[in-house]
Amino acid sequence: MENPGTWKEVAVKRIASLVIAVVAVAGVVGSSAPASGHAEGESAAVFVTEIPQGYREWQWISSAHEAGNLNSLGAVLGNDIAIKAYREGKLPFPDGTIIAALHYHHVPSDENNKVFGQAQSFVPGAPTNIQFMVKDSTKYAATGGWGFAHFGTDGKPGDAAFMKTCFPCHEKAKASDLVFTRYAP
Amino acid sequence: MENPGTWKEVAVKRIASLVIAVVAVAGVVGSSAPASGHAEGESAAVFVTEIPQGYREWQWISSAHEAGNLNSLGAVLGNDIAIKAYREGKLPFPDGTIIAALHYHHVPSDENNKVFGQAQSFVPGAPTNIQFMVKDSTKYAATGGWGFAHFGTDGKPGDAAFMKTCFPCHEKAKASDLVFTRYAP
Repeated sequence: MENPGTWKEVAVKRIASLVIAVVAVAGVVGSSAPASGHAEGESAAVFVTEIPQGYREWQWISSAHEAGNLNSLGAVLGNDIAIKAYREGKLPFPDGTIIAALHYHHVPSDENNKVFGQAQSFVPGAPTNIQFMVKDSTKYAATGGWGFAHFGTDGKPGDAAFMKTCFPCHEKAKASDLVFTRYAP
Repeated sequence: MENPGTWKEVAVKRIASLVIAVVAVAGVVGSSAPASGHAEGESAAVFVTEIPQGYREWQWISSAHEAGNLNSLGAVLGNDIAIKAYREGKLPFPDGTIIAALHYHHVPSDENNKVFGQAQSFVPGAPTNIQFMVKDSTKYAATGGWGFAHFGTDGKPGDAAFMKTCFPCHEKAKASDLVFTRYAP
């Protein structure tokens, strides 16, 4: 029969077990926290940091005009996988889909307005940024399967704080697989 | 020595020559009148009456927002010849160029505005028409080398009276070979 030991020895053993248990729980919490954070798009999410090649040659999905502070006029283009999915009405978008949003200042065209005889014509002015959504359900599992990208006119990606705002907003378009833009017929 | 004939005979010969000359002049006038009309775009100009194939798959040139009565949001697409000429800054556009302008109602996106929390987002609504410019410097010589086209949502071309308004307006963009739309970078 094992000697249960002195009170002090028993106490030390129990405390040791408790410490191990606490560490174990802490470990679980520690490793699960980022996963939980990913799901909410608030933690170390992965973003797209390189501009996808050839996007300017992709087909047109739609145009977009954002009034107010954005004052933006732009176009949304898609690679072949994106275009096929759009035309077939296929949701969710398959892996490999890339959607590009090209944004410009919404500016009046003096040249056109002279011809029309009134201030009615607005065209894309200087570029402001390019944004992408890249579908990879494994790599970007934490953000709904989409990798988000934003590049300023200097070609540099948006910083992490800014990029973390993409998913929580796009998540509101769950019914269309986080994509706001509809295909213009 | 040839007999000059009677006065009457001579008179008949002279009148006959005069009639031939008048007819000849009339013929010249008759055939030159339409050419002159063409040059001013006011006569029997030739329009495009069939929708060019595959235009929805062409590359994006730019977007356009027309405020006022037109209230239009759209995109301008180009076939490969158009896109190449635009990218190379080549003017005039070569024969074979086709430029398409896809027009839609400029409508607010309730869905997007809910997310933004304010009425700022405008998207293409129902289509209104599609217009084309087809470059063929021989066929459309009378209208600056461009054949103009307009198709309503029923797929029917614009009537002649309407189509005659295209060239006089586009003619004002002579410096860019009658094309208003600039290539968005």
